[in-house]
Amino acid sequence: VKLEDLGEFGLIARLARGCIVAPERVVVDIGDDCAATENAGGRLRLVTTDLLIERVHFLRRAITPKQLGAKAMAVNLSDIAAMGGRPLDAFVSLALPDDLSVEYVEALYDGLREMSAAFGVNILGGDTTASLADLVISIALTGEVERERMLRRRGARPGDRIWVTGTLGDAAAGLDAILQQRAELPEAAPLVARHLGPQPHVAAGRVIAESGLGHAMLDLSDGLSSDLRHLCEASGVGCVVDASALPISPALRTYAERFGLDPIRLALDGGEDYVLCVAGDAGLGAALGAAGHSAFAIGEIRAEPTRWVQRADGERHPLLPRGFDHLRCRDAG
Amino acid sequence: VKLEDLGEFGLIARLARGCIVAPERVVVDIGDDCAATENAGGRLRLVTTDLLIERVHFLRRAITPKQLGAKAMAVNLSDIAAMGGRPLDAFVSLALPDDLSVEYVEALYDGLREMSAAFGVNILGGDTTASLADLVISIALTGEVERERMLRRRGARPGDRIWVTGTLGDAAAGLDAILQQRAELPEAAPLVARHLGPQPHVAAGRVIAESGLGHAMLDLSDGLSSDLRHLCEASGVGCVVDASALPISPALRTYAERFGLDPIRLALDGGEDYVLCVAGDAGLGAALGAAGHSAFAIGEIRAEPTRWVQRADGERHPLLPRGFDHLRCRDAG
Repeated sequence: VKLEDLGEFGLIARLARGCIVAPERVVVDIGDDCAATENAGGRLRLVTTDLLIERVHFLRRAITPKQLGAKAMAVNLSDIAAMGGRPLDAFVSLALPDDLSVEYVEALYDGLREMSAAFGVNILGGDTTASLADLVISIALTGEVERERMLRRRGARPGDRIWVTGTLGDAAAGLDAILQQRAELPEAAPLVARHLGPQPHVAAGRVIAESGLGHAMLDLSDGLSSDLRHLCEASGVGCVVDASALPISPALRTYAERFGLDPIRLALDGGEDYVLCVAGDAGLGAALGAAGHSAFAIGEIRAEPTRWVQRADGERHPLLPRGFDHLRCRDAG
Repeated sequence: VKLEDLGEFGLIARLARGCIVAPERVVVDIGDDCAATENAGGRLRLVTTDLLIERVHFLRRAITPKQLGAKAMAVNLSDIAAMGGRPLDAFVSLALPDDLSVEYVEALYDGLREMSAAFGVNILGGDTTASLADLVISIALTGEVERERMLRRRGARPGDRIWVTGTLGDAAAGLDAILQQRAELPEAAPLVARHLGPQPHVAAGRVIAESGLGHAMLDLSDGLSSDLRHLCEASGVGCVVDASALPISPALRTYAERFGLDPIRLALDGGEDYVLCVAGDAGLGAALGAAGHSAFAIGEIRAEPTRWVQRADGERHPLLPRGFDHLRCRDAG
């Protein structure tokens, strides 16, 4: 059996067997955005980890070290946000190739520090070592959430509205602009910024958790079509996404038109949006809006466990996961 | 400035600046075996992380995947042991090169699981991704320790005896045997086993913590001469190590004699012993012995901040750190 045939999720399912030997303290294990464990004082402890490898997740020439550091921290913060949690402390491990300058590493750390400090997160350590080939960034981030407020991927109910907390597809178009040598065009700038500088929706996640109106949540990292599959399968439900309701930014609309791309396709399948996707009550939009956050209703949860996208002409197509599998294909940026 | 000129510890000192934005919950930050943070219920929360990179920390042909998994987990458990803590939950991130088989990854996980299960530790998740070059293993391990029992690198007092919980230099001789193509010799077998299969001294660490007789502790990973420097500098003290008291295993003595190596040198400078080194009362040896653990008194803490090794002939030499700096040199195994 080859790794690429099994895929990331097939492999994880195999490896997860027998990993829990002390189940009494485990609330959420493998398969959600964070693990959650029992803790004194009624708050669950959250942990998320993320491993970024040069040439697989980023190209050194396509992102500044400061942007890279900030992005590496942001994607972990987004996982804490996805559980409705508050981030606490980060642990950063770096494997540094010989040809890297001290200035590069310091700029990388500037980005890490700025992003973590903006969310009250300490960087408390980690490991620094050499690498003979690629730059490696490994982050573990802790957080906490009140037990009764935590949101998981499971829990979506038929009739729930599906909300997202920001526009979709911008980061994917930004990656396209970088790969197609169009990053310098003025209309590409906001898209490239979304790709290189994602902002984790931690505050929106807290509003959703505290509202009590959300039933299931995750952050969009692999792409809406893949991530909605995760949420629906974990919840044992299906969904219908309304293509005409997908929030497309003016910048994406302009860029897609100019270069003959389908903005709906980018919004459905493009990865690295790092907005929250939550299934819950119709009142969630107002709760988010009142707190100053964006909220777009993009569809509905259905009891029947199939996933559809409804186009403007009324026709329904299966919502196939075309997002990112880390063992099956590679991106860059 | 080049990374190798600055070295691992110089770089960490630069990067650590400004990393703490919420000091109120931090008890131990960068520079100890684990970070420790406040937690509800009077117990501190410990976190340690370790990043293993192929060709820097291991060679795939020199260690079986199961041994590699077990060792990767063991070195993190050893860091929890070094604070006197109990390990709780592990998070394992892997970057997998294309040419790796599913069987290799499953055997790696068998090793991870067996070692963690032996200490009641769950594997609760992590990240699995591709790598274009080297296999990367990143582990974050949580633990806990009663606030008043925690042992740090700082705290050693003049007059303290220096104890180690196992023989020294075996792992370094085992690495030598592998590199010199002598791993198949019968006399090398126990040394190679110490190099490939370190056993973390978690139970001994708990005995030391609960005895209240220890003042400062760390685990020996870089080599006694380097690690004692860390302990002495953190404590603002010096030490004298008695060369004739260093615990040398019969296997190391035989191997060193046959191949013209100095066993004292290997015990002083060889890395990856993964035994505990603790400065404390004279009664520590009896406390460890009563609980079934080894304890060897190898020297004494002195007020004067210099470090010496006293040879059998009574002559004193400076105890220079000749251990491992991860940015200055590379080992393999």
